[in-house]
Amino acid sequence: MVITEICQRAKVASAELAKVSAEVRNKALYNMADALEKNCSTILEANTKDVESARAKGVKEALIDRLVVDKKRVNSMASNLREVAKLPDAVGEIVKTWTRPNGLIIGLLRVPLGVIGIIYESRPDVTSEASGLCIKSGNAIILRGGSDAINSNMAIGNSLRTALEETGLNKNIIQVVPVTDRAQAEKLMTMREYVDVLIPRGGANLIKTVVEKSTVPVIETGTGNCHIYVEEDADLSCAIDIVINAKCQRPGTCNAAEKLIVHKNVAKQFLPKVISALNLNGVEVRADQKTMDLIPNLKLAVEEDWGTEYLDLIIAIKLVDSLDEAIAHINKYGTKHSESILTKDFNKALKFINEVDAAAVYWNASTRFTDGNQFGLGAEIGISTQKLHARGPMSAQQLTTTKFFILGRGHIRQ
Amino acid sequence: MVITEICQRAKVASAELAKVSAEVRNKALYNMADALEKNCSTILEANTKDVESARAKGVKEALIDRLVVDKKRVNSMASNLREVAKLPDAVGEIVKTWTRPNGLIIGLLRVPLGVIGIIYESRPDVTSEASGLCIKSGNAIILRGGSDAINSNMAIGNSLRTALEETGLNKNIIQVVPVTDRAQAEKLMTMREYVDVLIPRGGANLIKTVVEKSTVPVIETGTGNCHIYVEEDADLSCAIDIVINAKCQRPGTCNAAEKLIVHKNVAKQFLPKVISALNLNGVEVRADQKTMDLIPNLKLAVEEDWGTEYLDLIIAIKLVDSLDEAIAHINKYGTKHSESILTKDFNKALKFINEVDAAAVYWNASTRFTDGNQFGLGAEIGISTQKLHARGPMSAQQLTTTKFFILGRGHIRQ
Repeated sequence: MVITEICQRAKVASAELAKVSAEVRNKALYNMADALEKNCSTILEANTKDVESARAKGVKEALIDRLVVDKKRVNSMASNLREVAKLPDAVGEIVKTWTRPNGLIIGLLRVPLGVIGIIYESRPDVTSEASGLCIKSGNAIILRGGSDAINSNMAIGNSLRTALEETGLNKNIIQVVPVTDRAQAEKLMTMREYVDVLIPRGGANLIKTVVEKSTVPVIETGTGNCHIYVEEDADLSCAIDIVINAKCQRPGTCNAAEKLIVHKNVAKQFLPKVISALNLNGVEVRADQKTMDLIPNLKLAVEEDWGTEYLDLIIAIKLVDSLDEAIAHINKYGTKHSESILTKDFNKALKFINEVDAAAVYWNASTRFTDGNQFGLGAEIGISTQKLHARGPMSAQQLTTTKFFILGRGHIRQ
Repeated sequence: MVITEICQRAKVASAELAKVSAEVRNKALYNMADALEKNCSTILEANTKDVESARAKGVKEALIDRLVVDKKRVNSMASNLREVAKLPDAVGEIVKTWTRPNGLIIGLLRVPLGVIGIIYESRPDVTSEASGLCIKSGNAIILRGGSDAINSNMAIGNSLRTALEETGLNKNIIQVVPVTDRAQAEKLMTMREYVDVLIPRGGANLIKTVVEKSTVPVIETGTGNCHIYVEEDADLSCAIDIVINAKCQRPGTCNAAEKLIVHKNVAKQFLPKVISALNLNGVEVRADQKTMDLIPNLKLAVEEDWGTEYLDLIIAIKLVDSLDEAIAHINKYGTKHSESILTKDFNKALKFINEVDAAAVYWNASTRFTDGNQFGLGAEIGISTQKLHARGPMSAQQLTTTKFFILGRGHIRQ
């Protein structure tokens, strides 16, 4: 019952929001930012509850790290909302118009999707981030976070809702689902009548569950088993910098490199250097047999390694005989996220860009750039690894759709 | 087993097709057209088998009509393939490029989706139509038609496959599933690893089943409970022409009007004329109580009528007090397909266009124009009534996705 009512309220609120000007939507975003800062102590108190009960349950410190909200994080949520307000308007754009031989004028208008559901795990700042992008793009949002963060999410959600009311908007544009049991989440996945898209944000298991159980259209986001491929003619000094950056700069992110593929002709020269650099940076190196033949004393990578997103300071190395073999390996084991080739040869780079099936394909750069802000698209609601609707970083524009408008003067079809 | 192998072969074939130039793809389309004409008698024989066994099973004549293939239909399938060959190329386009402050060059490249599955009912010409659009857009296609048309589909599919081989392409770019039991169809709906999108084409039940059972992303097509709304200031003589055209020109199509909504202030003047015209055209008129108060002797519309797509010479009429009431009714009962307002007032038209939630929103025109060719987009694979990825008529371009390419010179993230 709870979920159905929430979804019905969201649908009503989304129809109201669709009529609101960009000016008012941006005003709401600034008010939301102010509200977070004003209610900072309430949010921190709620978060302390969550953190204490997570510690009592024995949750790992790495996860608690993602759960903790401090004053700095609240300020950063607020400033992110102000940044989103400054982005170009995502809806109302007339994408194009044309006239048919019979005089009918046809146009394509960018409009909000309607109601967006987010199912996410412990990071409470998603509550604010996702709400900001949804309002920018004229959508109502239903936030179903994890049980660990429920008090934080409710406190953040309540602040944002107060700000909506202050702006003269329906507060049900943003709703945090107050219950976190699995049955209610699964109910949300069937609300086709009210919810236009579901975006899961979290680990591979969460995403798999949503994809399998949801009858609402889903945009899959983010597991990244990303590869760096070093061709025989690569600039090896650059290559070491890129591998270290892609692996170590923030190993817990989905755009971090998890695998290193090296052309056999450059292995003898490159492997000792890159492995030593990786070791210096605290990275555990696993390797295929061919690599081990050159550099013994590494851990042998098993079949499972090639498909695993470590999200940790671990990398697996594979030697290949050719660019084709590298591409085939990436297309077999990759998660269609971010893949990079290091080469001086334009033809090889072009082949890699064309034939590797991924959201973002790099030439001579670290995979760590796959990010809405880094691409210059603004804040992102996730990185889509599927091919329908949106691929790669999804910003406010990817939360919109289009409708055709057709202007006639009594036109009938012959 | 059959389905898994078909999907695996499709995936291999799609990777090969992705490397092929537009020139070769267009050549394949011309060869496919020639092959249909050359194998016309084989196709007609296979179709005769289907039609005879459908008649023996007591299938309704209206459905048999959709099943029958004659020489004219084969020629029309062939000429449609030649038309598709002439369309602008759908893939390989660099949509845009930009340079980031750090010098990274980022671009967006249009690429095929990969493998497209079509689940459809009795019309055998879908086999050829859908294959043509998929090859134009660089995709492999798996066709799972209904059991009634299996011989026709296999014969058409075999002709097309021969043409692919003649062009030097992998014939598994087009595969017709040779078995039509439900279990195999449901298996196809779970082939996420190989199939990038499923498009159901057929009645509401087929679409519902695919949406509910598929874990492969689905593009919903086509039920159309379309409305014509006549405002108090509409040109009434135009209005009658448009209502008759939208209802009667081809009542079995998804863009035909199923409902007529009339502003009360114009009811007395308009209803007698439009009802008499509808009757003259053999249309059964159902009506709400308010309409019956003015024009007795009509059949009273019940709640179920408002949500029904008749696909027949039936229309239901409702009177409303205001434009807002008309919009609310359409958004409640419509299927988000095609909706039209007849008015002289730009402000009312704009309100209708903005607030009605549908793929195509019309001002002073018949809803019958919602069609790829009528919109000038070329042949269509279906009309999407969902909001993700594609909305409205889907032509070759809607069977593509994009990938980001990122060109660096040793760039690492700071």
